[in-house]
Amino acid sequence: MLIWRDLKSVMSEFQVLKFGGTSVKTIARIQHVAEIIKGISSGKKVLAVVSAMGDTTDFLVKLAKQASEVPDRRELDMLLSTGEQISIALLCMVLKDMGVAAKSLTANQVGIFTETVHTRARILDINSKRLFQGFESSDVLVVAGFQGVTVDGDITTLGRGGSDTTAVALAAAINAAECDIYTDVDGIFTSDPNKIPGARLLPRVSYGEVLEMARLGAQVLHPRAVELARQYNVKLRVRNTFKPEHQGTTIDAGGDMEIFRSISGVAVDEDQCSVAIMDVPDQPGIAGKVAQALADQNIAVDMIMQSFHPTAGSNSITFTVHDADLDQTIKILAKLKSELNARDVLADPDCAKVSLIGAGLCGQPWIPALLFSTLGKNKINIKMISSSEMKITCVVSRKQAQEAARLVHDAFELKDSAKPAS
Amino acid sequence: MLIWRDLKSVMSEFQVLKFGGTSVKTIARIQHVAEIIKGISSGKKVLAVVSAMGDTTDFLVKLAKQASEVPDRRELDMLLSTGEQISIALLCMVLKDMGVAAKSLTANQVGIFTETVHTRARILDINSKRLFQGFESSDVLVVAGFQGVTVDGDITTLGRGGSDTTAVALAAAINAAECDIYTDVDGIFTSDPNKIPGARLLPRVSYGEVLEMARLGAQVLHPRAVELARQYNVKLRVRNTFKPEHQGTTIDAGGDMEIFRSISGVAVDEDQCSVAIMDVPDQPGIAGKVAQALADQNIAVDMIMQSFHPTAGSNSITFTVHDADLDQTIKILAKLKSELNARDVLADPDCAKVSLIGAGLCGQPWIPALLFSTLGKNKINIKMISSSEMKITCVVSRKQAQEAARLVHDAFELKDSAKPAS
Repeated sequence: MLIWRDLKSVMSEFQVLKFGGTSVKTIARIQHVAEIIKGISSGKKVLAVVSAMGDTTDFLVKLAKQASEVPDRRELDMLLSTGEQISIALLCMVLKDMGVAAKSLTANQVGIFTETVHTRARILDINSKRLFQGFESSDVLVVAGFQGVTVDGDITTLGRGGSDTTAVALAAAINAAECDIYTDVDGIFTSDPNKIPGARLLPRVSYGEVLEMARLGAQVLHPRAVELARQYNVKLRVRNTFKPEHQGTTIDAGGDMEIFRSISGVAVDEDQCSVAIMDVPDQPGIAGKVAQALADQNIAVDMIMQSFHPTAGSNSITFTVHDADLDQTIKILAKLKSELNARDVLADPDCAKVSLIGAGLCGQPWIPALLFSTLGKNKINIKMISSSEMKITCVVSRKQAQEAARLVHDAFELKDSAKPAS
Repeated sequence: MLIWRDLKSVMSEFQVLKFGGTSVKTIARIQHVAEIIKGISSGKKVLAVVSAMGDTTDFLVKLAKQASEVPDRRELDMLLSTGEQISIALLCMVLKDMGVAAKSLTANQVGIFTETVHTRARILDINSKRLFQGFESSDVLVVAGFQGVTVDGDITTLGRGGSDTTAVALAAAINAAECDIYTDVDGIFTSDPNKIPGARLLPRVSYGEVLEMARLGAQVLHPRAVELARQYNVKLRVRNTFKPEHQGTTIDAGGDMEIFRSISGVAVDEDQCSVAIMDVPDQPGIAGKVAQALADQNIAVDMIMQSFHPTAGSNSITFTVHDADLDQTIKILAKLKSELNARDVLADPDCAKVSLIGAGLCGQPWIPALLFSTLGKNKINIKMISSSEMKITCVVSRKQAQEAARLVHDAFELKDSAKPAS
């Protein structure tokens, strides 16, 4: 298996590189990115996906908000897609000045076909033929990230994590050896290196682990892109644009003995709230009704727990939502309350998730035991717990979240034993 | 003829409106433009062509110059075309908020096909079918000016005057009743109203007159757009975006008795230089060599004059060039000098053209006589003269140009007899 994969890497002549907004924030940075691309393009055909420069998208969103309180989504996509178009043009100008045969392509020119859903379209199909044709005359194709096109020729955007998703989808379409995600951090760490002293760079993690981390706030890569990579078995690498000599973190299906470890990291997500519907008479379909009402307003819920009080014959449903969605969630539940005959709706806005991520956690009882006792010993109250094969999450008070993460990180000996990762 | 034209206006359900960069410079101005469009769209299907907001194009060009001294032209088009895309999206957001069924379209989406020549492509064909399809579900289509697309799907731009040209070409494609060019002036005047007191608004002029004016510096409309309008007999109207109640100036084939006048205006172009190659031995092909050498460097020459000195058996060739091209012109001629055996190359950087524009000027000897004597009486030295059916141009010193224009404007009684046009 290992041999076959290496062979495949050698055989594939294509490499996909993705550069985020901070990597192309200024012309000087674009020149730096061009140097990286030039270096790689001497041996391979390179497909580079770029985001909009720095704060361009924020600027365009602000402009749209000035024009309309709730900007029409089709027109918003028409507007936002210009950000990436600016980046690809500038990057190709620089590459051509360096003597690299480069060509910029919009999503429409590539043929990155999406659903007809604006501001958060999903990719349906990619016209890889046009890419291969492009490579006949160019060594480097620079493709606008974040955007797509419908079969009717309307411009769409892919929503959050869009450029990562573009890169992975293109890598799958041309069967690239690797998809390197260049960003402003060194790779994926056992925890946030800015907050947890001694957080260690992971040279290799599995899709599953990185998915759990991403969902829990360690957003180096958008979960959507990771899921797509897993689905199409695209090997990802997270690297630092400003330290291109570093190897970063490789993300693949994992499973090799040598990289197996129980615990891969600790993640913190501070902007959480918990909401509970108390004492709903036990009847079928309650959780479904609650979930549907929230889904109708596009509110994502997490850590849903339902407990049954046999003596009272009633249920309570508790879940967490993001800070930004709390007010609307309460409004929706207040409406549902009488319909469901619930006793009360309670909200706790002071929640943070601290999660331990790894493989097969629940099969090793010492892990939850050490986790909970570490927090308990240090007087950190656990408000909620949920667990899966790959993570155990404790909800704690926000002001204790970072301390909790540091304690857990230490307790599980995740610290770099050598010098700290720079 | 008049009856038929009016009938056609009534019958055509389409109207094309073009708004320049100053008209969409801010969100507030875009809202104002949307109001104008809304008003017109209650009776007709409206196709609005818009330029980039204010100084967006200049900003993008600056960005390109930072990226590359001589930016690749294909990539420059990729970059510059984003300016108009931003405008169309914002304008449609505002229109939709006003309840107008509007939709933005890029040149690619419309199918405005051009040559594969970047930064100054000419329009080859327009897919009017897509426009008519668009009007099935929308009352207003907002199309990005200045841009086009090649048959291979590459983005092009049309160069100077591009958005005017887009508007006229679209008007021809859908057989619109009228193409209104909204700008920041009231219309076309007998001379520059900011400089010549009493300059009068012309309610109607012919394509030919406006072409002569435009070439001479009175650039309300780009000559290219006017030529296209003449070719396809598209009736133009120049109007002030900020005074939409004013009727502006109508431009058409003219020829009706009631609007015929000898003199339609005085134009000034101050940034001119004259260059002379002195005493070239008389031999065939000299003017051709000079013109070719300048054309190779894309330098436009004007007012070419060749005079023969029979006694010396030699020619001198004199012409005017724009200020910006003077240095390079002198360099080119210095190289040619020995090849042509010329005695000397002389340049006069202090030139301005003052031109009288009208119809059949040379058939009426009193016109050149009054023109030259007016300047002579007022001690304004005429350096060069050239004339055609529709204009007589005098080159004078730059510091006397405005005075000369004012004197000529007065002498030919072009002043508004009523109150000055505001």
